[in-house]
Amino acid sequence: MELHLALVHYPVVNRRGEIVASAVTNLDLHDLARAARTFNAAACYIVTPLKDQQELAGDLIRHWCEGVGFRLHPERGNALRRLRIVESLEAAREEILARSGRYPLVWATSAREIRGALAHGLARRILKGTEGPVLMLFGTAWGLSGTVLEEADAVLEPIRGVDDYNHLSVRCAAAILLDRLLGEERVTEARGSGFGPDDRKDDGS
Amino acid sequence: MELHLALVHYPVVNRRGEIVASAVTNLDLHDLARAARTFNAAACYIVTPLKDQQELAGDLIRHWCEGVGFRLHPERGNALRRLRIVESLEAAREEILARSGRYPLVWATSAREIRGALAHGLARRILKGTEGPVLMLFGTAWGLSGTVLEEADAVLEPIRGVDDYNHLSVRCAAAILLDRLLGEERVTEARGSGFGPDDRKDDGS
Repeated sequence: MELHLALVHYPVVNRRGEIVASAVTNLDLHDLARAARTFNAAACYIVTPLKDQQELAGDLIRHWCEGVGFRLHPERGNALRRLRIVESLEAAREEILARSGRYPLVWATSAREIRGALAHGLARRILKGTEGPVLMLFGTAWGLSGTVLEEADAVLEPIRGVDDYNHLSVRCAAAILLDRLLGEERVTEARGSGFGPDDRKDDGS
Repeated sequence: MELHLALVHYPVVNRRGEIVASAVTNLDLHDLARAARTFNAAACYIVTPLKDQQELAGDLIRHWCEGVGFRLHPERGNALRRLRIVESLEAAREEILARSGRYPLVWATSAREIRGALAHGLARRILKGTEGPVLMLFGTAWGLSGTVLEEADAVLEPIRGVDDYNHLSVRCAAAILLDRLLGEERVTEARGSGFGPDDRKDDGS
């Protein structure tokens, strides 16, 4: 199992459904890198065709991986080292081919319900059972373009909350999906410590 | 079950273990509010004793809940409406008492392993079985102060990755915990759509 992530800034849609290139967000890079490091995703590709955005992301990564940032916060460099800046999804696929010897399965993600979506439990089992690389795509802005969704090998089912509200940040959605796909096996409820409703402190309430 | 969150900016520790008041981060507020809305946490308290930080957070909330932000992105206002600015954890507890008629159970969180920590599976079951409010605390900076951890009714076990790296952002950690405690029941692996390793596209690899 070898899971790669891609944070896609192009092609994504804006709130009117038009295809745009979104701006790189500093905290996205930190959060995705740290989540990738936590759950041992092999790499996280930062996908943007915009040269200035590539430079911005490159400066940030160098600051934390080599510069004064690394001396002060080595754990950030250790996470951000998993980031790779690429100009397109195609470039990410080629880099994975070069590293792993084969193209990845591509799994797109979406906040919307899509027919035939790949359930998270099954995705987890596939990851465990497959040797080849998998590339999981996260869209910034209002999500991945329709073409990216159509061309992916699968689209993961959305993270469902209590109703149809589906506006998690991409940072939080990626973290939850990594936990669902790679996190520790669900802790059995028997493994408790004795805390419970009956242990409620008497606060005079 | 009524789960409240608190994003604590004081008292937290810096990397030298000293107690400090941290600055409010714009995206923390957005991410916590959207995660709270997704999983139907009752409210998220933004805890800071610093007046200028309270004003900053208040301006942000008003912008998205009432101002031009709400007209453009009503779904953000619908999430940020769950945020409440308070000067202390004590004030959050008092507000919950006023709303719910009783003080909350207080569950702290930590990235560190702590003896007797509350397992997530058990915490989920307690939430389902209890009628009273629960207040779950998230520390910014390098985490909640020792006193807060000691005074809490329980400390939740940390989110474990593949090794001892434990530097998730508070945004991602909160999202994962909300999913573990309030998210949909684990999808059974049988509920698949037929995607699998054998469906791998032939890309010439």
